[in-house]
Amino acid sequence: MISIDEARTRILARLTPTGAEIVPLSSGLGRVLFAPAIARLTYPAANISAMDGFALDAADAVPGTSLTVIGSAPAGRPFEGRISSGQAVRVFTGSVIPDGADAVLIQENADFDEIRLIPHTTIARGKNIRSAGLDFRAGDNLLSSGTRLSARDVGLAAAGNCPWLSVYRRPIVALLATGDEVAMPGEPIPAGGLTNSNTFALAAFIRTCGGLPIILPTARDDRVVIAQAVESLSHADLLVTTGGASVGAHDLVQEGLGMHGLAVDFWKIAMRPGKPLMFGAMGTLPVLGLPGNPVSALVCALLFLKPAIERLSGLPGAAPQSEFARCTVALPENDRRNDHLRASLVRDPDGGWQITPFAQQDSAMLRRFAEADALLLRPPGASATPPGTMVQMIRLADHGL
Amino acid sequence: MISIDEARTRILARLTPTGAEIVPLSSGLGRVLFAPAIARLTYPAANISAMDGFALDAADAVPGTSLTVIGSAPAGRPFEGRISSGQAVRVFTGSVIPDGADAVLIQENADFDEIRLIPHTTIARGKNIRSAGLDFRAGDNLLSSGTRLSARDVGLAAAGNCPWLSVYRRPIVALLATGDEVAMPGEPIPAGGLTNSNTFALAAFIRTCGGLPIILPTARDDRVVIAQAVESLSHADLLVTTGGASVGAHDLVQEGLGMHGLAVDFWKIAMRPGKPLMFGAMGTLPVLGLPGNPVSALVCALLFLKPAIERLSGLPGAAPQSEFARCTVALPENDRRNDHLRASLVRDPDGGWQITPFAQQDSAMLRRFAEADALLLRPPGASATPPGTMVQMIRLADHGL
Repeated sequence: MISIDEARTRILARLTPTGAEIVPLSSGLGRVLFAPAIARLTYPAANISAMDGFALDAADAVPGTSLTVIGSAPAGRPFEGRISSGQAVRVFTGSVIPDGADAVLIQENADFDEIRLIPHTTIARGKNIRSAGLDFRAGDNLLSSGTRLSARDVGLAAAGNCPWLSVYRRPIVALLATGDEVAMPGEPIPAGGLTNSNTFALAAFIRTCGGLPIILPTARDDRVVIAQAVESLSHADLLVTTGGASVGAHDLVQEGLGMHGLAVDFWKIAMRPGKPLMFGAMGTLPVLGLPGNPVSALVCALLFLKPAIERLSGLPGAAPQSEFARCTVALPENDRRNDHLRASLVRDPDGGWQITPFAQQDSAMLRRFAEADALLLRPPGASATPPGTMVQMIRLADHGL
Repeated sequence: MISIDEARTRILARLTPTGAEIVPLSSGLGRVLFAPAIARLTYPAANISAMDGFALDAADAVPGTSLTVIGSAPAGRPFEGRISSGQAVRVFTGSVIPDGADAVLIQENADFDEIRLIPHTTIARGKNIRSAGLDFRAGDNLLSSGTRLSARDVGLAAAGNCPWLSVYRRPIVALLATGDEVAMPGEPIPAGGLTNSNTFALAAFIRTCGGLPIILPTARDDRVVIAQAVESLSHADLLVTTGGASVGAHDLVQEGLGMHGLAVDFWKIAMRPGKPLMFGAMGTLPVLGLPGNPVSALVCALLFLKPAIERLSGLPGAAPQSEFARCTVALPENDRRNDHLRASLVRDPDGGWQITPFAQQDSAMLRRFAEADALLLRPPGASATPPGTMVQMIRLADHGL
């Protein structure tokens, strides 16, 4: 058995980012930049007004004196002439500041009509003016390669006049469920069998991680059928299997994939739930074998599949960020396996978290897992602790689960 | 000017959830349930084995005695007969427990071959058996109406044998940008003008909130053109405008929409950035008028548009959750407007957050805003505070921004 960190390191080391494709700006959300987004313009392009008011020479803003309003410069229609002493031009938020002006007097600080302006206040040079290039200049690197684009980032690329983005192609993740007892929802269920829930939870999770899931037909517990199921996966960047990965006689996934030359890197991890996790490759196709129990499968997906998809997407790929919480109950000594207790969270009045592990931790109980807020992390060999001890935890919703 | 909370309350009061549509389970991620997901089966359907091993009568597990292995019951192929005293059946994780057995001895705790089993240990009744209905029973409400479906929830609906889900239709949000100075990215830009960034940032943000954005052609600063732009919006659930909402002469959005009978509910909020926010309705179509400055537009979107989309989607719609952070710098006294300072976050060694507001807070600086981690919240009339004071903040990435 190897540690979680070693397993993740070995998985990430075997993965190569997909490569570039061009997408329209409006499809950029959540994508990872392959090439940086470079500003194609300077913003603001010229000195512009930050307010509605009057552009003038700051020296002319003498309370009670009268200035001549020589024109108006709506945003998008700059004033053509030049302001001389004693003159002002009507401007609005975003208007280009006319030559000869060096400040904007806001309209609330003046009496005015179409032709006259009487300031109520003096004004400092540069006041209410946004200088050309205040936010960025043409040629600036607005968003670096390897950035996962937020809504703000998409807006920034638009502001920089980038209608197209070069992003990493979304990794295609083929999902293979195995098992004679497994039926697709809505289809006939074998005696004592169950519906395939792992595939649907994993496909949804893969989407939240930025991957494109492909659901392969469920394979019977037969090594030849399993081998046939994975024959045409040249389009996939990763194969994920569920089920068939424990030590029983019906663990045929490794045998089936072995007919295509599966080279197993490792297949046991010192963790609970999820010990029987397999990683290897069929030729150049990396293969991640998840346990069959739904909770085990999803906890392993969080710890290994998510970083793998991130690495394929052009990101580094890292362990999910853990946080502190105060445990409300006593915890027993832990054995040598990393434990991940399903738990509920409540906010402390001081803004911290209180965490309470569920009494039942059965890895087949998906309903209970769907209700969990967090995984409480118990490192190998952790001592017994009294109630109120600070622990580390991972918030599930924060990680797309 | 009204408060943020009053504005949000008035917006939410005017919105009605969209209504139901049926989607396949595999499209359920992120959708909000209209009808609850009811379990169509009991899981486990029968008592099943939690391990690979041997099903037997617990009383027969006497170390050193020999039992007869009378068959095998792979998962999905239950053993037909009944176990008598002195007999055992080979089982695997998920196998139905045969009649007459009440425990599973794991294979690591026995010597065995095809026909003989010699236990190394005694075993408690019920050990390594998952009882029928342990996770849920047919007819159970697995996921309530109004639940936004996570990856785990999608898996749970699959486990409950629900191939279709009844969800709220995604709200359609029409986006109208106005302004003579505004060009679409990649198209010719007017003198002193800029590209339309708000629409792209907002469209992406609307997607993260669960809405479907529709980008209307940009309207010139002309009330008739604006009126024409919004003539055919019977398919929309909400109209969002950007720009044209301040007090200047070129604030034509209200006039243009007024030609379709816009009834304004309010149009000024005691907040910074974002004071000129407008809300009203054209007939039955609610209208949210966002400020033109990109930072103002997005902060207002976070505080008002997100809850609005949530309400339209069948959720309650609430203020974004704020958190505690320790401010690293002194803060001046605040005026009567709620302030939202763009800020960076660093983790404390103790797991808390340290927050540092940016020195420049210009609401036109989208690049700086794209780099921000959080909004530091300053309530109206807040006193000046020394460095190290605890403040409230909203983490931007957590809210899809």
